[in-house]
Amino acid sequence: MQDQQPFRTIGPTTYLSPIPCVLVGCADASNGIRPNLITVAWTGVVCTRPPMLSISLRKERYSHDIIRQTGEFTVNLVSRQLCRAMDFCGVKSGREVDKFAALGLTAVEAPGLSCTPGLGEAPAFASCKLRQVVELGSHDLFLGEVVQVSVANRYFRPDGSIDEGAMQLVSYIHGQYHQTGPALGFFGYSVASPKVLERRGFGKGKRR
Amino acid sequence: MQDQQPFRTIGPTTYLSPIPCVLVGCADASNGIRPNLITVAWTGVVCTRPPMLSISLRKERYSHDIIRQTGEFTVNLVSRQLCRAMDFCGVKSGREVDKFAALGLTAVEAPGLSCTPGLGEAPAFASCKLRQVVELGSHDLFLGEVVQVSVANRYFRPDGSIDEGAMQLVSYIHGQYHQTGPALGFFGYSVASPKVLERRGFGKGKRR
Repeated sequence: MQDQQPFRTIGPTTYLSPIPCVLVGCADASNGIRPNLITVAWTGVVCTRPPMLSISLRKERYSHDIIRQTGEFTVNLVSRQLCRAMDFCGVKSGREVDKFAALGLTAVEAPGLSCTPGLGEAPAFASCKLRQVVELGSHDLFLGEVVQVSVANRYFRPDGSIDEGAMQLVSYIHGQYHQTGPALGFFGYSVASPKVLERRGFGKGKRR
Repeated sequence: MQDQQPFRTIGPTTYLSPIPCVLVGCADASNGIRPNLITVAWTGVVCTRPPMLSISLRKERYSHDIIRQTGEFTVNLVSRQLCRAMDFCGVKSGREVDKFAALGLTAVEAPGLSCTPGLGEAPAFASCKLRQVVELGSHDLFLGEVVQVSVANRYFRPDGSIDEGAMQLVSYIHGQYHQTGPALGFFGYSVASPKVLERRGFGKGKRR
């Protein structure tokens, strides 16, 4: 354990890391169905039952009103291969650019939603129905219930479990996108028996 | 870019990764000041101005009522060295165990708060004042405004910037704690000039 040490204050700021960074899918249904993608790092899990995710959006963003109107969005996980596309979707507005076309990405049907696309190249995505909007200041907090989760076939192991490690998911730390490193342990490993540690691949000699 | 491919649905679940996992500090002020730590992965940034973080807690958790009563909490970032302690704080209840004592951790003053501790061994922590609680189901969503952020002295570079890479922060992916890997890019890198890429350390030859 590293020693306790002096701190320096840096003022009030959103200093939480690592955080997820995802591509949120939505569809402008006002004039035909026009799919869009927006990059969101202000996102998180907010409830287990019902399963709910939150995304925070600035009022002035193109996707803000779209999601308010359709009451739907998808949360698409971002693999290393999608990192550059995600960055592009964070700096360009869907008002000016068809991001799916510009990036050669595929809008796929999101199970459980009426018009909102999933991202075909994402390793997995959650279909969400908007349940509540909480106005906070610069951002509105959108609370969505997950109605279905889709995972790309290739990440299933033969036994039906999912290999999240193979997804090479990206996190966000203070302005930088980061790869995910190796696993350090599993929930409960600090109190697990040697037998359980061995079975889960964290046995003696493999201890991190 | 990897190709679009078929998906398989796995039902509605909280499938967001990587997510943060933090140690939330609070203090039971009902009988003297008794500091406690709780492990939380259902957390995120929810607003930029004012800076706000969310944490979701089950109603039956010891810390739920404490934070409701004091109206304060700290969000302590977790380094690799703290991973085992964080896991322990997630499986034990502060009703039965003094976690600070059991783990040899230090409760330090959290600037801007009245009785709630920061974690002296954390690389950084945010002091938060509770602004709103939204009941969602299994979990209540606590919305906190960040009133101050404290960063351990050792992570400041000589020029005053902060070396978040050196913090070796931990993320959570579907039941496992993960190390943070190397940076893939910075916000805006997909549209940055070669000059900017070079200056930021992502120039030709270093491109990920």
